[in-house]
Amino acid sequence: MYMNKKLLIAGLLFLYPFIAPAQNTDYKVVFDLTSKDSMDHKAVIRWLTEVSKANPNAKLEVVMYGQGFNMVTKDRSVVSDAITRLAENKNISFKVCEVSLKNNNVDKSQLLPGIGTVPDGIYEIISRQQQGWGYIKVGH
Amino acid sequence: MYMNKKLLIAGLLFLYPFIAPAQNTDYKVVFDLTSKDSMDHKAVIRWLTEVSKANPNAKLEVVMYGQGFNMVTKDRSVVSDAITRLAENKNISFKVCEVSLKNNNVDKSQLLPGIGTVPDGIYEIISRQQQGWGYIKVGH
Amino acid sequence: MYMNKKLLIAGLLFLYPFIAPAQNTDYKVVFDLTSKDSMDHKAVIRWLTEVSKANPNAKLEVVMYGQGFNMVTKDRSVVSDAITRLAENKNISFKVCEVSLKNNNVDKSQLLPGIGTVPDGIYEIISRQQQGWGYIKVGH
Repeated sequence: MYMNKKLLIAGLLFLYPFIAPAQNTDYKVVFDLTSKDSMDHKAVIRWLTEVSKANPNAKLEVVMYGQGFNMVTKDRSVVSDAITRLAENKNISFKVCEVSLKNNNVDKSQLLPGIGTVPDGIYEIISRQQQGWGYIKVGH
Repeated sequence: MYMNKKLLIAGLLFLYPFIAPAQNTDYKVVFDLTSKDSMDHKAVIRWLTEVSKANPNAKLEVVMYGQGFNMVTKDRSVVSDAITRLAENKNISFKVCEVSLKNNNVDKSQLLPGIGTVPDGIYEIISRQQQGWGYIKVGH
Repeated sequence: MYMNKKLLIAGLLFLYPFIAPAQNTDYKVVFDLTSKDSMDHKAVIRWLTEVSKANPNAKLEVVMYGQGFNMVTKDRSVVSDAITRLAENKNISFKVCEVSLKNNNVDKSQLLPGIGTVPDGIYEIISRQQQGWGYIKVGH
């Protein structure tokens, strides 16, 4: 009887990964933006707006490297009002790769309010992937 | 002796995740299509055709949002015959984001036969990712 | 007492996945390149150079299918010197899809030195994803 109970526990432990109930997908997405094309900028703004409206707890992060910084730079952004508004949502964050800023001679002071930076945009993205966040490449 | 056996079981349970043999990768892919460019549409058709021919059990799903719906809409698709043929394969599915249909004033009745819809294309994609499906962004 | 110890072990085994300390993200990335655009080729060269310089142990792999082979083909590449140099780094690999080579009538002998091939580029990418590598679609 005692042995049976122990075997049962062992069996359950062994089987646990296979019988665990399906869970609802956490709504966590990292968006990868390298484009300077304003069509892509408008698309990501629309997705952030729609997803956050329908899922207020969704965690959304836009990581910009390559030419993506153009979306959040004061003199270049065509969506600056929307960016400023979205950046106030605590579940939405915008992070620009510091290497790409340096490569393009853009200073942090030129970024819109509420925009953060990361040392390495690619590392930020793959870290989110390893943490189980979904990944969406922005493009068209 | 009894204790040893229990410790052995406990040890094996503990180590299992680290010693489990490498498994063949399941061929499950979600394709992310936001482009209206027919070059991208032809590319995804070619990949679906080739992968499903070489791997009849591969699970393939194309999720369309943004402008991707153009690939599976009656009056706009330049690959409608191929789409209709591929959609008959039970391991291949095409799912259009209902938000993007609404945003573009496209009714479900305008979709090619066999095309499904999902309430939220991005959520569909990240759900597949969390289920262990591979992710491929269609683009060129 | 004995039972308590067994329960403790069982409990720890059960809890292990939830209490394991956060680990640093391994820097392993598979880059998905389907573009023949030299701007994309220059971008991926820049990322490989910067990431490998800052993280000498990072594992980086570029998988080319679609039109991506143009980056590593003798007569077409505009970044051939950089490719040859990067390919000598044991932590960086370049793999071209054999199906795309065949579809475009490109022979392996036309590839730059150090460039490998894989039977199926998409399968290579999703295998890396399942092995926990980060995924980056190259595009702009």
